[in-house]
Amino acid sequence: MSEKKEFLGYKGEVLETIKKAEAEIGDIIRVTKNEEVYEGILIPRSEYGDEKHVVIKLRSGYNIGIRITPNTKIEKIGKGAKPAFAPTSSPEQNPKLPKVAIISTGGTIASRVDYRTGAVRPALTASDLYSVVPELANIARIDAQILLSLFSENIIPKHWTEIAKAVAKQIAEGVDGVLIAHGTDTMGYTAAALSFALQNLPVPVILVGSQRSADRPSSDAATNLIGAVTAAAKAPFAEVALAMHETPSDTSITLHKGTKVRKCHTSRRDTFKSVNAQLIAKVENHKVTMLIEDYRKRDPSRKLVLKPEFDEKVALIKSYPGMNPAVIDWCVENAYRGIVLEGTGLGHVGRYCFEAIRSAVKHDIVVAMTSQCIWGRVNMNVYDQGRDLLALGVIPLEDMLSETAVVKLMWIFGQTRDMEEAKKLLKTNIVGEFSPRTLPEKSGE
Amino acid sequence: MSEKKEFLGYKGEVLETIKKAEAEIGDIIRVTKNEEVYEGILIPRSEYGDEKHVVIKLRSGYNIGIRITPNTKIEKIGKGAKPAFAPTSSPEQNPKLPKVAIISTGGTIASRVDYRTGAVRPALTASDLYSVVPELANIARIDAQILLSLFSENIIPKHWTEIAKAVAKQIAEGVDGVLIAHGTDTMGYTAAALSFALQNLPVPVILVGSQRSADRPSSDAATNLIGAVTAAAKAPFAEVALAMHETPSDTSITLHKGTKVRKCHTSRRDTFKSVNAQLIAKVENHKVTMLIEDYRKRDPSRKLVLKPEFDEKVALIKSYPGMNPAVIDWCVENAYRGIVLEGTGLGHVGRYCFEAIRSAVKHDIVVAMTSQCIWGRVNMNVYDQGRDLLALGVIPLEDMLSETAVVKLMWIFGQTRDMEEAKKLLKTNIVGEFSPRTLPEKSGE
Repeated sequence: MSEKKEFLGYKGEVLETIKKAEAEIGDIIRVTKNEEVYEGILIPRSEYGDEKHVVIKLRSGYNIGIRITPNTKIEKIGKGAKPAFAPTSSPEQNPKLPKVAIISTGGTIASRVDYRTGAVRPALTASDLYSVVPELANIARIDAQILLSLFSENIIPKHWTEIAKAVAKQIAEGVDGVLIAHGTDTMGYTAAALSFALQNLPVPVILVGSQRSADRPSSDAATNLIGAVTAAAKAPFAEVALAMHETPSDTSITLHKGTKVRKCHTSRRDTFKSVNAQLIAKVENHKVTMLIEDYRKRDPSRKLVLKPEFDEKVALIKSYPGMNPAVIDWCVENAYRGIVLEGTGLGHVGRYCFEAIRSAVKHDIVVAMTSQCIWGRVNMNVYDQGRDLLALGVIPLEDMLSETAVVKLMWIFGQTRDMEEAKKLLKTNIVGEFSPRTLPEKSGE
Repeated sequence: MSEKKEFLGYKGEVLETIKKAEAEIGDIIRVTKNEEVYEGILIPRSEYGDEKHVVIKLRSGYNIGIRITPNTKIEKIGKGAKPAFAPTSSPEQNPKLPKVAIISTGGTIASRVDYRTGAVRPALTASDLYSVVPELANIARIDAQILLSLFSENIIPKHWTEIAKAVAKQIAEGVDGVLIAHGTDTMGYTAAALSFALQNLPVPVILVGSQRSADRPSSDAATNLIGAVTAAAKAPFAEVALAMHETPSDTSITLHKGTKVRKCHTSRRDTFKSVNAQLIAKVENHKVTMLIEDYRKRDPSRKLVLKPEFDEKVALIKSYPGMNPAVIDWCVENAYRGIVLEGTGLGHVGRYCFEAIRSAVKHDIVVAMTSQCIWGRVNMNVYDQGRDLLALGVIPLEDMLSETAVVKLMWIFGQTRDMEEAKKLLKTNIVGEFSPRTLPEKSGE
């Protein structure tokens, strides 16, 4: 190991203190500072780190940074251990079981923390999975591949294209279901993107993530993975769905429609909620129970229609009091093709934005309206100001999520540059992104 | 009545058809088009209306626009009626009751639709209120004033200043509580703004709205008003709170902390939710029940501290996959002082935004992070990418709502231009905008 690697990211004063203690990355150290004592594994710093803090992984699994002062002492109290999980060989695969392809894109579920280096590493070879979650061998024959290794906040539309193509390839090879391991941060956006990109599906495509990595006692990774593999292998529907905990406890996994799901809590296991839509299904004790009657049935003979292109020239703008409408002009100047306004209430923005909106529409930009309320339905016929926005050419997106709306517009401009065609597609319910009105005569209620 | 008024907003072909029927605004008309027949009151069109639709108010209270074609027939079937509510004289005021000032800013609660003209008019003189909700005379002596008549999506920070000053004036005159009638769309933002602007309150300041206007059978206006007046008159706390329905039914009104409340449904009566915080109190059967123990007690001798200034040079940017980081550069170029990034999950944005963020911080812009999850707490110490953002100088806003965050930054720059002072204020829990961590050792859970 070169010195560069041993002290990954440390520099200046902190590096000197670590060197003096003869510690290196992966060693267990004790940091004493005034009355406080911290013990843990010395982990690498990021490239953006300063010269003042040492970072250790505590026994709890959490990392903390401790500021080094002249009276801080560092002692090495143990040598680095080997990684907790070593790859094992796969168990015998039962040829009678359905075949599930797992495509990993990164994120917490696809990773395990190497305690020795603190580095997060993808761990999704089939054998790794079987070693962490041996039950999987009784549910499906798994073929796992690592497509991307990204925190999901770094996933952009071109990755949606890559993922869609990888799924199509697996389906062409005849798998019974596809599972996509994904970071939870933007998993809702990717679920919507794949819903539009993978039409006329023959088998289920399930996205799954976890809120805590597999090597932490409170991890939800194994339960989510078992639920998601069960759905991919056996569920009777053929749609893009997202599988996560139903409640904070480990008893059931729910399946959400890809266009109607949103991350609603920073850290809870049951963070994903179906918004303005019913759950598709539930997995309990390795059994899939359908919760809706109207769904596309699994049918391996059906021919997938792959439409994987997206165009990034679409903006999502959340409105707020005093918002500068010049940000809409900025979209015009930068040749955007579409704008999703996340307005207030039933779909409103301040009258001070009207001129900018009028100009955007005049410049052939599709301007659509969703609501920052999240729940409910945009209805721009209730108040004058909503009707004025309609008259300006703003397209109301009913009960569509803002996140789904921006993805759909990006997808639309990946299919066409014709404005009338784009508007028509935007208003068409392609993959359940609009829920039907239950009480059409009471839309404002 | 001049011809201009009789045909408010109508032009071209539609105007000709209306004139031929000898109908005018406020008359009851029948529109026959092929097989369809519509009857309702002819109401004015907005300035943005086209030349093709006639708009009538149906008996249900809803307005519809009907496109006029060559075979559409309009008949006048009745003369316009008088407004439904006529102002009556106020009842005798009981001098033993507490005194409540009602300040109207507009919105559905402050309005009634004049069926004759379709115009929404403010209706908040004390006598109007007593005529609509006679119970109020048994709860408090009311002094009502119309400060603004705005749909709340048109309210901007300078209006927050006006409202705060009007409240301070009432408090100086010795009222026992102040009630602000407000549109629901941005009532959460205004509640946060007043929380910062009106510090060290001696009496309660209650914001109230309604989801349906008082002249509709399903209106929540009266119940909300009774609950809010009760709280303003009798509640033991002296804070800025927002009063709305607890559930879709009329049984109880809940009081939310002004900095922790958000509109979460486009149309339900129980649209407002306390996020990451407990409800302050509940009003049932004219009785206020406190739901928290730690609150500022009502004390008329306490001296209000008025800090009503706001600075609009603050942006709220909701991140999404493929967002163009140049929008952050645009804020720099336009001399913004602060940016609230509504990131994903625990407080992340794509690495492709890092250079723009670094540049914004270098240009002395305060960059803060909230989460579009809404529920939960930003924690940028869990993943490397969060730590990198911290190293860039991004300030994590814990469990603060994005809406409260943008308001708070606008308020901060209304108080100071000193960057260090601004950052210090942003991190200080001034009026409960941060909730304490319940389990400090499990912040990532």
